[in-house]
Amino acid sequence: MKEIKGGVCAALGFKASAIAAEIKYRGRDDMAMVYSESPCVAAGTFTTNVVKAAPVKWDMKVVHERGSARAVVVNTGIANACTGEEGMQVVRSTAEAAAVALGVESGEVLIGSTGVIGMQLPEEKLTAGAGSLAKALERSPEAANRAARAIMTTDTHEKEIAYELEIGGKTVRVGGMSKGSGMIHPNMCTMLGYVTTDACISGEMLQKALSSVVVDTFNMISVDGDTSTNDTLIALANGLAGNERIDSENADYEAFYGALNAVCLHLAKEMAADGEGATKLIECTVRGADTKESARTLAKSVIGSSLVKAAVYGCDANWGRELCALGYSGVMFDPEKVDMYFRTGDHELLIVRNGIGSGYDEEEASRMLASDHVEIIADMHAGDESAVAYGCDLTYDYVKINGDYRS
Amino acid sequence: MKEIKGGVCAALGFKASAIAAEIKYRGRDDMAMVYSESPCVAAGTFTTNVVKAAPVKWDMKVVHERGSARAVVVNTGIANACTGEEGMQVVRSTAEAAAVALGVESGEVLIGSTGVIGMQLPEEKLTAGAGSLAKALERSPEAANRAARAIMTTDTHEKEIAYELEIGGKTVRVGGMSKGSGMIHPNMCTMLGYVTTDACISGEMLQKALSSVVVDTFNMISVDGDTSTNDTLIALANGLAGNERIDSENADYEAFYGALNAVCLHLAKEMAADGEGATKLIECTVRGADTKESARTLAKSVIGSSLVKAAVYGCDANWGRELCALGYSGVMFDPEKVDMYFRTGDHELLIVRNGIGSGYDEEEASRMLASDHVEIIADMHAGDESAVAYGCDLTYDYVKINGDYRS
Repeated sequence: MKEIKGGVCAALGFKASAIAAEIKYRGRDDMAMVYSESPCVAAGTFTTNVVKAAPVKWDMKVVHERGSARAVVVNTGIANACTGEEGMQVVRSTAEAAAVALGVESGEVLIGSTGVIGMQLPEEKLTAGAGSLAKALERSPEAANRAARAIMTTDTHEKEIAYELEIGGKTVRVGGMSKGSGMIHPNMCTMLGYVTTDACISGEMLQKALSSVVVDTFNMISVDGDTSTNDTLIALANGLAGNERIDSENADYEAFYGALNAVCLHLAKEMAADGEGATKLIECTVRGADTKESARTLAKSVIGSSLVKAAVYGCDANWGRELCALGYSGVMFDPEKVDMYFRTGDHELLIVRNGIGSGYDEEEASRMLASDHVEIIADMHAGDESAVAYGCDLTYDYVKINGDYRS
Repeated sequence: MKEIKGGVCAALGFKASAIAAEIKYRGRDDMAMVYSESPCVAAGTFTTNVVKAAPVKWDMKVVHERGSARAVVVNTGIANACTGEEGMQVVRSTAEAAAVALGVESGEVLIGSTGVIGMQLPEEKLTAGAGSLAKALERSPEAANRAARAIMTTDTHEKEIAYELEIGGKTVRVGGMSKGSGMIHPNMCTMLGYVTTDACISGEMLQKALSSVVVDTFNMISVDGDTSTNDTLIALANGLAGNERIDSENADYEAFYGALNAVCLHLAKEMAADGEGATKLIECTVRGADTKESARTLAKSVIGSSLVKAAVYGCDANWGRELCALGYSGVMFDPEKVDMYFRTGDHELLIVRNGIGSGYDEEEASRMLASDHVEIIADMHAGDESAVAYGCDLTYDYVKINGDYRS
């Protein structure tokens, strides 16, 4: 498996485009389209929030009832959540406008929205935008990159990746793009993520792989503990690679799974690192846990702690906060067995041994926390399971961005 | 029932003192004592964190095994959490020093600590301090106030209150003090709270009342979602009021319960309003919920949302964030039935009707959020239960305080 260029356009048959529809932002692209020349099986995972945005309801129907799709239309600026029947009407008309322009059915068009909740979308701009996007479609790394930039809100940079691998002698490509960066505590969460592949795989196996990959990738990141109304992760597979169709958990499935996991892990880590106001990626590995679920819960508790996040921002090796966060996670463990390490690059420092301070050098620990990628490792000495969660520091800019988001 | 002066010294027989022991802070009081001239029944609720500070383990033993106490010794600056056997030794020797100086048993002395986790306490300063505190005891509003100030960490002001009421023809007093203000997400949580009363009540009924009162007071506040290793709420009742002993849930119990609830609610709201960096108290009332537990969960979810907190700080009526927080609380409800209001003082503004924006005036809403006490009311239209949660806004100063706490 090797990394290649092209993001969502890396896989055969996929095109992308972006335009400035001036929905809410001015002077930047705010609508994007991804389109496959041939039909795709579609899989998806969606927000667990009881309050679901109109496009989420639409996409769930497309994925769960039809199971196939041809295109995705995404807008930023307004989330189309808490918009009632008027919001659902905009989704329908946008899908119809795209369908007409693309010569497909409206039920094959997925819709994604991100931005302010509660505001109505300008319907004409969306439908006109869908038409313009269809005309602008192109299969190139540049088009993929422009689409990845168009779906950003408070993200500071685009997130895209693609890998290629061999499956049964055929070259298969898996690429993706996503956006963060606030209201990020996926279970699914507004993250939007789109993965495209030319692998030939059944819809059932694609959904199985996606649902499984999400658990240890997008669902292990947290920026602020808020689970959005709009979180959506879509995978589209058009089969153009010509590999023998994957319809069981065989070796081909495992190979595909590895690539899908790599794409999602890359995007998830990028989203955590680019959390609103963040200056650092925080990675918490919990090992020696009694169950996999315990390991995940413990790691996410550390990543989710405002006090841990603020301490890492301040380069303060205040390890009691990590231990405290493990303690209120809901998982039972013996605090007097816990060891903790900080790691940056190859350098590892024992901070806590058997639940109390190891007598480490404060300056050394503080220097390590000044890195832009801080790893916290907790060994529970309670079993053999491990998990990794990804988050970011809590900064003045998070407050600034979210204290005045709508203006 | 009327409010009176005197805090923890309001009840007959209770004295207090404070000294500067220079445990970590310089130039301010950092140890406090509360003492009852006659034996007290003791009740307590403690942190649910798996990682429990040494004084918490000590106090749990005193309260749950002995059920009576004479004194409380509190220090600030260092939490005595994650300090192993050495930390427990400091608790024992501090309790012994206080016991000798007071002429009571060490098993009757409760200990409370708050501050940095993982640092060892200077044992001699603690034991010497306990002796000095015993000598300085006094029954006066001034002594109570000084004790309330001595237990503060990042609090900006002391929190104390007292009420007096009639029970069976006798005047009974209930007073208390507490400190916040970070790592506050009580379930019990570092909040430390001490309630003193001269009511005559059995230990069992005191514990019952305290455990019940906590649910809708201290456990309904959140500053940052972190549940401390040290959270402790203690109630001491010495019976000096001479009322007929309360040993069942009769009318006297109800009267006492009302006063205890008033004391705890006052302290809890003060703690929320004085959360680290906070400029405003946010009060979220959820009504029309299907169960009491749902109402509590929904209200706490709103109060706990970083995005809600930042929006309130920025006076941004971004109500989608409140609705979103209700949605990911874990409680099922119909988003299209939810109404939401902002309230400040007597002024109420309908923001959301049936899950979508009401068309309210943005400037008016923003002006309301500029108040130092913002009320958010969500009506779920799903039943008759309600609950209120208390929190505060998320500000630059929260980040500042917690990015550099230990220096």
